[in-house]
Amino acid sequence: MSKLTIALDIMGGDHGPPVILSAVQKAIQSITDTKFILCGDENVILPALENLTPQQRDRVVVRHCAQVVEMGEAPTSALRNKKQSSMWSALQLVESGEADACVSAGNTGALLTMSFYLLKTLPGIDRPALVSDMPTAGHHRVFLLDLGANVNCTSEILFQYGVMGSVLAEQLSGVQSPRVALLNVGEEDIKGNAQVKYADQLFRNAKGINYIGYVEGDDIFTDSADVVVTDGFTGNIALKSCEGLAKLVINEVKRQSQANFFSRMMARIALPLLKTVYNRVNPDQYNGASLLGLRGIVIKSHGNASAEAFYYAILQAKQEAEINVPEKIKSRIETVLLEQL
Amino acid sequence: MSKLTIALDIMGGDHGPPVILSAVQKAIQSITDTKFILCGDENVILPALENLTPQQRDRVVVRHCAQVVEMGEAPTSALRNKKQSSMWSALQLVESGEADACVSAGNTGALLTMSFYLLKTLPGIDRPALVSDMPTAGHHRVFLLDLGANVNCTSEILFQYGVMGSVLAEQLSGVQSPRVALLNVGEEDIKGNAQVKYADQLFRNAKGINYIGYVEGDDIFTDSADVVVTDGFTGNIALKSCEGLAKLVINEVKRQSQANFFSRMMARIALPLLKTVYNRVNPDQYNGASLLGLRGIVIKSHGNASAEAFYYAILQAKQEAEINVPEKIKSRIETVLLEQL
Repeated sequence: MSKLTIALDIMGGDHGPPVILSAVQKAIQSITDTKFILCGDENVILPALENLTPQQRDRVVVRHCAQVVEMGEAPTSALRNKKQSSMWSALQLVESGEADACVSAGNTGALLTMSFYLLKTLPGIDRPALVSDMPTAGHHRVFLLDLGANVNCTSEILFQYGVMGSVLAEQLSGVQSPRVALLNVGEEDIKGNAQVKYADQLFRNAKGINYIGYVEGDDIFTDSADVVVTDGFTGNIALKSCEGLAKLVINEVKRQSQANFFSRMMARIALPLLKTVYNRVNPDQYNGASLLGLRGIVIKSHGNASAEAFYYAILQAKQEAEINVPEKIKSRIETVLLEQL
Repeated sequence: MSKLTIALDIMGGDHGPPVILSAVQKAIQSITDTKFILCGDENVILPALENLTPQQRDRVVVRHCAQVVEMGEAPTSALRNKKQSSMWSALQLVESGEADACVSAGNTGALLTMSFYLLKTLPGIDRPALVSDMPTAGHHRVFLLDLGANVNCTSEILFQYGVMGSVLAEQLSGVQSPRVALLNVGEEDIKGNAQVKYADQLFRNAKGINYIGYVEGDDIFTDSADVVVTDGFTGNIALKSCEGLAKLVINEVKRQSQANFFSRMMARIALPLLKTVYNRVNPDQYNGASLLGLRGIVIKSHGNASAEAFYYAILQAKQEAEINVPEKIKSRIETVLLEQL
């Protein structure tokens, strides 16, 4: 098997290159069958590579980039003015086929806009989606999409998200015929807005998708479905609300644990558990969110990601590249659309 | 001051009349300046009143109703066929002015539909909203609306929700000039869908509203705003997602606490705390959700409410009746609309 190549945007993220480079060093050392192209300021990158062995160094290419997309920069301005940036460079390596996947912890909006522009969507896919898996009871994985790539979703786009999510669940968790559900305000047929109701019809008429109907918000965290589909507005707000609640619970437990000896002891047990849950409700912080539906693999690591989180995002890029997720989605979409004719 | 009168739907809720009646007995005994009209099957209600003193019994009227709105019944069918029901009866007492407020733990959709039909909205209000206050750090109250009354919200409706929420925050938490925010996927101007962006303009152009702009999902649980406005689709899903997460955390702590004697001890301390948080994320379970924007006061207690929760919902009905929340909203809406001319 020929080596995979992963392009890495070294300059993105709230903590800057040092945290990213620490993850990259670990990746170079431990993922020995993969080549890495590091995009960014070579004056920052090269010193971080000095400790590598010659064999390790052989698997690394540095692509110097003079520009950085700032975290607060408007996506359209980045697209217009930052074609020398590390983010653009990493995406372009995927577009040209020089890399099999790329990872960035940079400005989400800019990454979405540049990816869409450079890589284009797969045939049959109108818009890409951000997807990640959520924590649930047991070790079941629920893939939730869209987490905010696309705030205006037609019913057709929701349907395409269902097909893409289904492929991802099948490939990444090995579930046969994953259960796909639409997120709604109730489980009855009469509930929901026009987009959701018509998307429900599209799913019901489609072959090759194990559509199970509507689920409600609390079902995201149970074993009710393998794929939960919603628009990027609702998905982002649901995810962020849960993040806020998890933070509140952690702070509340910390505060109450100051009261006496017993509660201090309690906090010692409860806090690590709560933090695990918190990290899992920040799935992109935990292991990166996939940008699905493009003609190439793009993994978004959380802007606030730790070195460990960025390392997991690299592993995820590798896994999706090995499976060739875009190819799998392309072929499934073709099948589903053909069956509808 | 003349006595207030509160109408109670005795037949609603998942647990049936016994739980409701237990709350009602407590209310009759402890809220001594209020009259109660109990709507439901008199064969069920009358035996529960036998322990009351003659003075207590004097403040209670039983309105026999032959029908019950079932929990799973379609709202339109309830509206068409259940005009002899306890729910209809309680709402009609508010409409006729015989009661100052009503409380029901019954079918939410039916209650919304019947309320809208019988009570009508206030002038300047297109649709009612379900609102409740969320737990936050400290003892700050954040009023979140809409929680699911109205899944299709125009920008104008979102704006009206902001005005109503502002009045409620001012009246119930005593905040001067409450900070009103729109829930969005980012805080930048360019973010969001068309409804939210135009609602943002309406708020910015309005006088007499302390509009602070966009907040994200995690800000619901911080001290960022006093009123957070969103459409009923997103609001319901955000609330239910948080409920699901809270349940997951509680179950996870329970499961992990089985490990050994030490962790069982710890769980005994951690669980009550987590349950307090959980109850607060189920605000309607905790103290009822207000149906705002109608020409009368309707409090929705959670279908799964305990006797304690239904009792709190009665207290809330009384508080809103004392303040005369609909009158306050009417007058504020007039002011805001006039100022826009």
